[in-house]
Amino acid sequence: MGANSSSFSLSISSPNHHLFPSSTLNHSKSPSNFIISPSYHTHFPKSLSKSPLNSPPKCSIKQTKTNPSINSPKNPVFDPHTIDSELVQKLVHDALVWSSLHGLVVGDRNVKRSGLVPGVGMVHAPIALLPNSFPEVQWNQACELAPIFNELVDQVSLDATFLQDTLSRTKKVDAFTSRLLDIHSRMLQIGKKEDIRLGLHRSDYMLDEKTNLLLQIELNTISCSFPGLSCLVSELHRTLLSHYRKPLGLESQKVPINTSASKFAEVLGKAWTEYNNPSAVVMVVVQPGERNMYDQHWLTATLKERYPFLLYFIDIRLIVIRSNRGVFGLLKSNPELINTHNVTCIRKTLAEIEAQGKILSDGTFQVDGEAVAVIYFRAGYTPTDYPSESEWKARLLMEESAAIKCPSISYHLTGTKKVQQELAKPNVLERFLENKDDVAKLRKCFAGLWSLDDLDAVKNAIHQPEGYVMKPQREGGGNNIYGDDVKETLLRLQKEGSEEEAAYILMQRIFPTVFPTVLVRDGICYKEHAVSELGIFSAYLRNKETVISNEQCGYLMRTKVSSSNEGGVAAGFAVLDSLYLT
Amino acid sequence: MGANSSSFSLSISSPNHHLFPSSTLNHSKSPSNFIISPSYHTHFPKSLSKSPLNSPPKCSIKQTKTNPSINSPKNPVFDPHTIDSELVQKLVHDALVWSSLHGLVVGDRNVKRSGLVPGVGMVHAPIALLPNSFPEVQWNQACELAPIFNELVDQVSLDATFLQDTLSRTKKVDAFTSRLLDIHSRMLQIGKKEDIRLGLHRSDYMLDEKTNLLLQIELNTISCSFPGLSCLVSELHRTLLSHYRKPLGLESQKVPINTSASKFAEVLGKAWTEYNNPSAVVMVVVQPGERNMYDQHWLTATLKERYPFLLYFIDIRLIVIRSNRGVFGLLKSNPELINTHNVTCIRKTLAEIEAQGKILSDGTFQVDGEAVAVIYFRAGYTPTDYPSESEWKARLLMEESAAIKCPSISYHLTGTKKVQQELAKPNVLERFLENKDDVAKLRKCFAGLWSLDDLDAVKNAIHQPEGYVMKPQREGGGNNIYGDDVKETLLRLQKEGSEEEAAYILMQRIFPTVFPTVLVRDGICYKEHAVSELGIFSAYLRNKETVISNEQCGYLMRTKVSSSNEGGVAAGFAVLDSLYLT
Repeated sequence: MGANSSSFSLSISSPNHHLFPSSTLNHSKSPSNFIISPSYHTHFPKSLSKSPLNSPPKCSIKQTKTNPSINSPKNPVFDPHTIDSELVQKLVHDALVWSSLHGLVVGDRNVKRSGLVPGVGMVHAPIALLPNSFPEVQWNQACELAPIFNELVDQVSLDATFLQDTLSRTKKVDAFTSRLLDIHSRMLQIGKKEDIRLGLHRSDYMLDEKTNLLLQIELNTISCSFPGLSCLVSELHRTLLSHYRKPLGLESQKVPINTSASKFAEVLGKAWTEYNNPSAVVMVVVQPGERNMYDQHWLTATLKERYPFLLYFIDIRLIVIRSNRGVFGLLKSNPELINTHNVTCIRKTLAEIEAQGKILSDGTFQVDGEAVAVIYFRAGYTPTDYPSESEWKARLLMEESAAIKCPSISYHLTGTKKVQQELAKPNVLERFLENKDDVAKLRKCFAGLWSLDDLDAVKNAIHQPEGYVMKPQREGGGNNIYGDDVKETLLRLQKEGSEEEAAYILMQRIFPTVFPTVLVRDGICYKEHAVSELGIFSAYLRNKETVISNEQCGYLMRTKVSSSNEGGVAAGFAVLDSLYLT
Repeated sequence: MGANSSSFSLSISSPNHHLFPSSTLNHSKSPSNFIISPSYHTHFPKSLSKSPLNSPPKCSIKQTKTNPSINSPKNPVFDPHTIDSELVQKLVHDALVWSSLHGLVVGDRNVKRSGLVPGVGMVHAPIALLPNSFPEVQWNQACELAPIFNELVDQVSLDATFLQDTLSRTKKVDAFTSRLLDIHSRMLQIGKKEDIRLGLHRSDYMLDEKTNLLLQIELNTISCSFPGLSCLVSELHRTLLSHYRKPLGLESQKVPINTSASKFAEVLGKAWTEYNNPSAVVMVVVQPGERNMYDQHWLTATLKERYPFLLYFIDIRLIVIRSNRGVFGLLKSNPELINTHNVTCIRKTLAEIEAQGKILSDGTFQVDGEAVAVIYFRAGYTPTDYPSESEWKARLLMEESAAIKCPSISYHLTGTKKVQQELAKPNVLERFLENKDDVAKLRKCFAGLWSLDDLDAVKNAIHQPEGYVMKPQREGGGNNIYGDDVKETLLRLQKEGSEEEAAYILMQRIFPTVFPTVLVRDGICYKEHAVSELGIFSAYLRNKETVISNEQCGYLMRTKVSSSNEGGVAAGFAVLDSLYLT
């Protein structure tokens, strides 16, 4: 195994927004060519929850000692640690100003109301100062995979037996998956079909340093976070590279344009059109006290601003087909007409939905008196989102309704780790995809995945635990098992012979390149060494007859401070980043 | 005198950014037809400096009792107090989200670092939820006056004797004006000429309810605040009116498009071009700990983003004239070329300028090693900006340099109240403006202005103090004298026979309409009654040969909670607003 090993914990690689709380990032003990001395990890505090009043007034740069062995990533375009500190100061200042003016913001954890009321207690999102080098070949590969994964999710979601069978053992040991499966069963029982199916997905990858392979960490089918903010980070980086072209010597065009917010909004709008009730709303299911609300607001704001154009565009297309006349310019010149058809978006917690929601006789889902066309989940992916039966009632009610669910219960279950592991088995993909090239492309990005009833895999993992990660089915973060703990846990499970082993899968441990980076958080910048993970956003929309959208929409690069795991799980911290193609 | 009387104190009508601290707003005792009961004034707290943790989680609406006599402004398009509370909630939520995403933000006074580091401790700017009705005739009048006032400032600034003579008595009693005059004298002494003259002005008006006349409060020639944020408020209001067209029944186009940020940035860019040194920077002179920094950042960000286009536009125009070929499209298609000429902007306090600045032998002003093309003052207008001799040294150094000053010391002095009062005397405008129509237009907007050596005026003011305001020359806010205090102060000054009277001017008290409004601050909305003041931004740029820019650039509507002045000076609170033309 090469260099430093790292694999993101659930809390990081999960679809949700656990970017802000310190999250876990793990390394095996560093091989000699990549010694991560503790001095590299002490600079980024695990918790910055102290009052900002005590922070230095100007952006202080926390300088790490240079370790030459670390400054040699595989794609060493530039090393941001070599930029002189005066230029770093200017870049940080400009980045913070740009973020503030352009809505690259989150709720400040130090301000209690910041998750409750928009516009108060805002702070810039934690960001990497400059983009992260990434090979163009693997970038293209990741983009190419997006529509294939979309198609796979849709096909798997239709195979109810496959989902129920695959998750049958998990059901016994994981209460959360069990509840989801109950809803799924109930839908089968009442013969509920989803004719209009909407998926807003994010497939997360790491680049394995030794093999240079792009390997999938997981495929998120519910509540994918950061489509709203990640595109802003790309724009910020392009702006900085453009303004500081001479001193940095980098080309802004090498940061791929990121259209995650506008594309997700567009497809939400298209789904709304498919529902075909102009007075119906798009409902965002939110967690109470959501500090990452601006990421979500960007989607709904874009939808509200943009959607009227889509509506007219469809009308025009029909006119064009029928009469071959170009009427588009005419409509564009009348802004009032355009403004009359804004999509209304509402935000509700699961508890509010339970209290205010009902299904009308025609299947319409009504919340607080408003018909709901599309339900977009930004909550409901983790057990803690269901503190009482009310939330489960809300989830069931939505699933039973005629509203378009993003995702449906089937899409949600298709994104579970157990299904991911099952799909990695030989000849399983072929059940769902006809195109052999597509199957080959997907398989190429699969890391090794095994269930714990695979005795050979378990034997190997006990023998060589540093090559594996044990992932619990349960979402929620921080529960992955690494290193010697893999061995110990496997031995314990073998001894006990319990069903508990069904709660885990084994995954090949991926070892991404550790690279030097400059991170900015709470107005303070840090020189650190980090690893990163690439998420590709994709959207899928179809009705009974045809596929309306199936496309790559943008990307999320998350960069996390690397930490040694002396003594077990160590804490890292993640920021939003973008790509610099090499 | 009709209805409620109100005149803004210095702290509000002054050019600076005293929007956030509670500021004074005064009324005479209300005549019977417009009784402002105390219940209207207790809802907007004078200070909200308590922790937001104690604030309600959702936008609470503070409802005032309806007083029918108040709901009859002269231009009663709609009364926002009659909007149902559910719709108000939606509007407030959307307004707060829009503000957060679009950079309509300020530093939160509760976060100490918010004035020191960008991107931390941000909160939405205090705003009126909906625009304020304003008659189109007076709006057009105010716009028409902008270039005439620009021309007047330029002409007055060239008459050194007029400035020195007019301010000679003020000099003896006002230390701040005295220091400014010393710098002015020094420039005369060394024969310093400003060939390139740049003014970014704001002329503030109120609409007198009784006469329906647009009357000038003052003309600001230094540090005019809110060109960056006011245009965002107009855009916010247009967006809300458009999205809620049906329930509100208002037309978004009736909110005039506000180009204050882009126009100010454009003229700053043009001035930079005139200076003709591509490596020179634009320097913003700032107060330390500026919480209104985003208002300033909007100008410099726009300048940086936009300026390359201006530069190329000039190049292209020359090519077009010479060869009659359309080359513009070609250049536009090469973004890299465009990106190489960004204007650099730096921010410095007066103390930093004193420490880092020097004048090179050719007159170039250099700060921290960088040549300065344009000095844009957003500090230096008030005595508190000069806590030591260092700041005065910095001011003198800048004035002596070849950099373009916005404003020069002459422009600054031209904006003083004493000069305003002198210009209002018969036959004075005619000394500076040839066009008689222009003179008539300016005179029409002048409120009554008198010096304290005008014995008739003083006599009248003692007899009828409620019709006058005493304004001290000194900037800084909260020093205006109203009501019985006018009488007492005038009698005291008469008795003492001191020079102190030269520190004041007498101004006709303006009585604007009190109207119902909804204000939003710190995420909380308030139904209040308020008065407002219209500021018209204008830019003027000329070189030795020709006037390059002389135009109206945008507007600032400030709306303040009206307060009775039982017991003297009462506190009001100001928010950013926009216009709805009637």
